[in-house]
Amino acid sequence: MLDLSLPTGLRDLLPDHSAHLAELTSKLQEVFSAFRYRRVLLPTLERLEVVERGLSATALERILKFVEPGSGEVVAIRPDFTPQIARLYAARPDALPAPARLCYDGPVLRAHEARAGRPREVYQAGVELLGEGGARADAEALVLLARALDRVGLGRAVIEVRHARFAAEVMAAAGLSRTAREEGSVALARKDRDALASLARRGRGSLAARRALPLLAELYGDGALARARAVARAVPRAAGALLEVEDALALARRRGLRAAAVDLGEVRGQGYYTGLTFAGYAEGAFGAVAAGGRYDTLLGRFGRPGPAIGFAVDLEFATSALERAEPSRARRPGARTFSRR
Amino acid sequence: MLDLSLPTGLRDLLPDHSAHLAELTSKLQEVFSAFRYRRVLLPTLERLEVVERGLSATALERILKFVEPGSGEVVAIRPDFTPQIARLYAARPDALPAPARLCYDGPVLRAHEARAGRPREVYQAGVELLGEGGARADAEALVLLARALDRVGLGRAVIEVRHARFAAEVMAAAGLSRTAREEGSVALARKDRDALASLARRGRGSLAARRALPLLAELYGDGALARARAVARAVPRAAGALLEVEDALALARRRGLRAAAVDLGEVRGQGYYTGLTFAGYAEGAFGAVAAGGRYDTLLGRFGRPGPAIGFAVDLEFATSALERAEPSRARRPGARTFSRR
Repeated sequence: MLDLSLPTGLRDLLPDHSAHLAELTSKLQEVFSAFRYRRVLLPTLERLEVVERGLSATALERILKFVEPGSGEVVAIRPDFTPQIARLYAARPDALPAPARLCYDGPVLRAHEARAGRPREVYQAGVELLGEGGARADAEALVLLARALDRVGLGRAVIEVRHARFAAEVMAAAGLSRTAREEGSVALARKDRDALASLARRGRGSLAARRALPLLAELYGDGALARARAVARAVPRAAGALLEVEDALALARRRGLRAAAVDLGEVRGQGYYTGLTFAGYAEGAFGAVAAGGRYDTLLGRFGRPGPAIGFAVDLEFATSALERAEPSRARRPGARTFSRR
Repeated sequence: MLDLSLPTGLRDLLPDHSAHLAELTSKLQEVFSAFRYRRVLLPTLERLEVVERGLSATALERILKFVEPGSGEVVAIRPDFTPQIARLYAARPDALPAPARLCYDGPVLRAHEARAGRPREVYQAGVELLGEGGARADAEALVLLARALDRVGLGRAVIEVRHARFAAEVMAAAGLSRTAREEGSVALARKDRDALASLARRGRGSLAARRALPLLAELYGDGALARARAVARAVPRAAGALLEVEDALALARRRGLRAAAVDLGEVRGQGYYTGLTFAGYAEGAFGAVAAGGRYDTLLGRFGRPGPAIGFAVDLEFATSALERAEPSRARRPGARTFSRR
């Protein structure tokens, strides 16, 4: 008897679920298109060298790679759309003059992991704005995400805005060692003010920065930007990052962004991000329904330097948020009450 | 300097081309849905054993397979949707009672080949009607294909109907050896009546069947069905196949099928097909814009026996047919004037 099971961690999506996912994709593409993003179709495989150039060390461990029989080339199955689009943008300046607005949808696949039961093929739909930096581009990404979530029925989702460098600059100015900075990231993930205070005492940086360090655990919720300004006054190098966040939010609000939260103490999942980052949270989803940010060094790694920003919607988290949402119980969720992937 | 090239035989589809392809997909899915076909999303990888069970020896050579690091499982990247859907249907009788109408779209990938320049990742959208046999199901597939082609602007395409067993039965009744049958297939592909006549002289079967053999080269175009009937009178085992074609065409015409041709001497690309087969041809495409057929033994190989029929549209051939079609020059093409993949 033939064993009909799938490779570990892979799944079929049955008709109802697939229909929801397809409908979601099509609505998202509608909004992307209204913002003049143009769809590209990218190959399932890339040469490993190209994928490696685009990802962080942590992400590299999860790449599914193999030697292709026949050609002997070492290839990888797409683990992330952004480096692939960066490679395309760098390879085709003739066809894709800057700024280029591109969008995509499809699966990304990660390598088999010891942790069983976790799906490793996930469906995404996303956008990349390539060759344009600054607050206007940042605001465009935020507004586009808000419109996209609105269009699919997730208008109550909260977009949480962060910055890839803010907390890092504070830790650097506090003079934390590499080990202490790693401990600091763990403490920040737990919002553990005491652990940060203890690390601050071991720091060799300015007194002001060491005093500011524990405040990183409280840079979310009401008044977060005011508290962040106090931190930025103590750490001038963090002030630029804060300004980027404030400018982007101000512009985005002028363009209609409503539900946004900030968390300037967030340091997880930075990967290739260099500036503003953000994620969308909706009640009923096991993780962020969308995530993205600015990556101003990635394109240069592929030989066509330039700023860029983008995000991807996690189609299954978004679908589960929609499926579980009971209109009668729907309410605007607080920004920090959701678990993350 | 990083080499930005893709693995051999893979391509990026740039915005204009991708947009055409996406629009085509979305229109096809509309028609599939109107015929009550429900979309499924299937994983990129399958266990090799499962894929092997579903494909012919020729197709097996083109599977991209590898050992997954981490799990050690031997897996394949989907080379064809049909065996994957057969596996799903067999594995989930609870969720997919018979008859099941399923549809899909996405890429299929083949192994690296020595022949350079030939794309090995192609985009398809297709349907499968599982657990239903007979002329009504055959006609449904033909009518659905015609409507789908019509909807995307390829209403002038010709659907050519064939049968997986007709010519094979004639060759068997003519008593051809295995080698001679292979030569016969080559001769049929070239429509080489003389070669068939020469093979007939070497046959050890009935005189009637040997006399009928060369006629296989002429079972297309005007009057093809009448000539096929003459062959079927000489080879009773071929008569059943002819009847299936006639019944399906009659029912399909009653349901509005217009441009259909037949070629009962066609033997190429049979693979897992067991009955009626068909392909759509449009001017301006390098190959068939769609192909499909009945496969009544495939489901049993996965442990849930039953009849089935389906087809896939080749989205790039269809897109190229649409892009090259100049309305002023458009005319109904003859069925045999197109080259094939």
